[in-house]
Amino acid sequence: MGKKLTSRAEDYSKWYNELVVKADLAENSAVRGCMVIKPYGYAIWEKMQAELDKMFKETGHQNAYFPLFVPKSLFEAEEKNAEGFAKECAVVTHYRLQNDPDKPGKLRVDPEARLEEELVVRPTSEAIIWNTFRGWVQSYRDLPLLINQWANVVRWEMRTRLFLRTAEFLWQEGHTAHETKKEALDEAALMNNVYATFAEKFMAIPVIQGLKTESERFAGADETYCIEALMQDGKALQAGTSHFLGQNFAKAFDVKFANKEGKQDYVWATSWGVSTRLMGALIMTHSDDNGLVLPPSLAPNQVVIVPIYKSEEDLNNITEVANSILTDLRAKNITVKYDNRDTHRPGAKFAQHELQGVPIRIAIGPKDLANGTVEIARRDTLTKEVVNLNVLAEKIESLLKEIQDALFNKALDFRNSHITEVDTFEDFKTVLETKTGFISAHWDGTTETEDKIKELTKATIRCVPLDAKEETGVCVYSGKPSARRVLFAKAY
Amino acid sequence: MGKKLTSRAEDYSKWYNELVVKADLAENSAVRGCMVIKPYGYAIWEKMQAELDKMFKETGHQNAYFPLFVPKSLFEAEEKNAEGFAKECAVVTHYRLQNDPDKPGKLRVDPEARLEEELVVRPTSEAIIWNTFRGWVQSYRDLPLLINQWANVVRWEMRTRLFLRTAEFLWQEGHTAHETKKEALDEAALMNNVYATFAEKFMAIPVIQGLKTESERFAGADETYCIEALMQDGKALQAGTSHFLGQNFAKAFDVKFANKEGKQDYVWATSWGVSTRLMGALIMTHSDDNGLVLPPSLAPNQVVIVPIYKSEEDLNNITEVANSILTDLRAKNITVKYDNRDTHRPGAKFAQHELQGVPIRIAIGPKDLANGTVEIARRDTLTKEVVNLNVLAEKIESLLKEIQDALFNKALDFRNSHITEVDTFEDFKTVLETKTGFISAHWDGTTETEDKIKELTKATIRCVPLDAKEETGVCVYSGKPSARRVLFAKAY
Repeated sequence: MGKKLTSRAEDYSKWYNELVVKADLAENSAVRGCMVIKPYGYAIWEKMQAELDKMFKETGHQNAYFPLFVPKSLFEAEEKNAEGFAKECAVVTHYRLQNDPDKPGKLRVDPEARLEEELVVRPTSEAIIWNTFRGWVQSYRDLPLLINQWANVVRWEMRTRLFLRTAEFLWQEGHTAHETKKEALDEAALMNNVYATFAEKFMAIPVIQGLKTESERFAGADETYCIEALMQDGKALQAGTSHFLGQNFAKAFDVKFANKEGKQDYVWATSWGVSTRLMGALIMTHSDDNGLVLPPSLAPNQVVIVPIYKSEEDLNNITEVANSILTDLRAKNITVKYDNRDTHRPGAKFAQHELQGVPIRIAIGPKDLANGTVEIARRDTLTKEVVNLNVLAEKIESLLKEIQDALFNKALDFRNSHITEVDTFEDFKTVLETKTGFISAHWDGTTETEDKIKELTKATIRCVPLDAKEETGVCVYSGKPSARRVLFAKAY
Repeated sequence: MGKKLTSRAEDYSKWYNELVVKADLAENSAVRGCMVIKPYGYAIWEKMQAELDKMFKETGHQNAYFPLFVPKSLFEAEEKNAEGFAKECAVVTHYRLQNDPDKPGKLRVDPEARLEEELVVRPTSEAIIWNTFRGWVQSYRDLPLLINQWANVVRWEMRTRLFLRTAEFLWQEGHTAHETKKEALDEAALMNNVYATFAEKFMAIPVIQGLKTESERFAGADETYCIEALMQDGKALQAGTSHFLGQNFAKAFDVKFANKEGKQDYVWATSWGVSTRLMGALIMTHSDDNGLVLPPSLAPNQVVIVPIYKSEEDLNNITEVANSILTDLRAKNITVKYDNRDTHRPGAKFAQHELQGVPIRIAIGPKDLANGTVEIARRDTLTKEVVNLNVLAEKIESLLKEIQDALFNKALDFRNSHITEVDTFEDFKTVLETKTGFISAHWDGTTETEDKIKELTKATIRCVPLDAKEETGVCVYSGKPSARRVLFAKAY
């Protein structure tokens, strides 16, 4: 496993990068800013995908697939969206390589094979999808269109970090079309709520649902819902967004329908997405200085069994017990692995499973055989316990639930203790420098003030929480009147 | 639904294109050669993916994800592979767009944002993956590496057809690394066999397993296994390939390991893939002039229930019966949909479900209510039957199995009756012009003869079947000696 992780206190950012690599989640690739998602990391992502996909289908959505490329003329059509993404687009200009006449054995782009129109590698798919939707919608009978796509997208970011910000990332993007404004607004709120439920129930990450300010909105959206989480270093992370797009894309791509009265109208739109960035949120919410800590509902292996033996005979007896545990746990739909590799010692296995965040480790040694017991160790609390074989399966089942809840509650306590109400700009700056976390403060509603605060403190408005109370106050910066508090934080 | 499909006899190619679009499987997009996979088509692909993914995992493979882009210098490293794909590469040269100074509201590539090294959009991922594997393999303990990736790839094809040949397509690509040549050869054979099992059991498509000749091999492979299917027009379709790559990529990317004796050696490799092309094979194997015919194991809806009613009261009573059928069938893991849309008449619903290939349709009308019966219709045979409600669930369950088998057997009979042994070149040409299908003939083993036959007849060697008997003969074209027959056909 190599040497110990850098601790969080020592260097949080280094701790994160080391953990991602050492726990076999992902690594950098030969392509600037693009990562390789390794099998263990991908297995966690697959569990997220499966659960999200189920939730999308239960809310009536269907999957489809649209082209990777967006012709420049379509990319340009919705101006705000184009403007928002133009600076980070990978662009295909040629469709062929040829032998380089100057360098034997090397290739170069064939100058004769230049595309008539450049193709943008999708940074998001509104343009290509809305151009397609035009053909799918004639009348109100064709609505709503409730489509989701699982795909890779590319945004040419200059500063990248594994999972958190990569040039290519994996995501899902929902794209829906509706008869009325209200329906589209409801859809955007519904899907943001689906994300919140997923984050809290499966990822054990408490999130705040809110609306973005104008300057933080998705390019092309009239309203952006979001879920915001708090990492252990006190920085916020936007974990998912759901956009009400108004009729902007319908107008840009001329998507009209005949309503029930037979009149032509533009449809109303939403789009919503979460990405492999969620992996970063998962890691930074729960993990500790010993490595990854995974909530049981997303752990590729919820339980691992490690045999401790000196003789072949011991191993055989332990294997017999282990097999019966495997059977009992699998009958309860618990994913469990028997780590009987003879190439590694128990200590190395313990270290690996700890680093990789397996929620429960079962160790079986000769003494356990004699006593009819096993030793179980919880990854989250690092506590151990001796358990009788005859109650083991029930114990593990309830313990997995307990761990899932404990992780959520621990993260919730941390988050709640890191929301500070401040009423002066001095306090605002002090909190940011000392305690960090979310700052709940009054704001005058102007982009000017928002920009000024960002410039002075690096804190941005994460959201206007959906449950924000009406409360008369004055802006923490400008002193102008304000009707509710918003949440500021430094953010990933 | 629009007007009737063109019949297969009239114009097979046109029938296929119309069917794909009318059955809501896919359509062309604004990007040359790239398709949109519509929700109904994607649902079938998802079923294929789920089953294949299960089979890959059962044979010990893990999923991972590698970058979309391949830097040109890596792309070049394995020369044969580079040469094979260079002519059809989409190439990213720039990473930013900017406002076009000459055209207000338009964008252009920013000439300042030219990449130092061009990026090839992966046409296949050997290069980027083998460059990564170098860091994953040190000793024999790290082997085998059994990796699979679900991804999109791009090959700039000039003549494209929905599903069969598209510039972008979806696929899975397995990439494995092994200690010994034998292990890698066994892996390539194993995965070809997994494909064959999948094609026959799930897609109900009989396939012939064989080896490709040198000129038809994957660029960079030492041996290519394949599964070959026969379409209803008598043309063959390569449905999957599995490659033994020798040490070619290990040498190109310097992937060595310490073997059990402590000596450094290059690893042995395989890669294998199937793609959305399988959708084309599925459609062309089973469908008829009325539309799509789907094997039950891949049908998004195995059963659809259509109510036939005049009064609200009838509908309520029918719905009650339908709900109880839904419960019974779902308890048997049968996917069933109650089509109670009030926007369409029963006739339109029948036509749609027939066009979309739902294996069994259940119709319930007022007379059925009185008699405790329903009418069931089989999509494959277009036959109808009245069935008592009390035996319906069992009947449907056994009928779905029967349909699955019937489709396979029908395709098998067709395929077997379209393999013709010929011993003269005259017969060869006659069979190709009249009966088509596979031609089993002797071949002298040279690329020269293979090319000549292709030039004269458009037929290629589809494979040397794995079960080909030793049989002394003379080449159908050159008259030179041959030890076994190979399969020729015109192919997609």
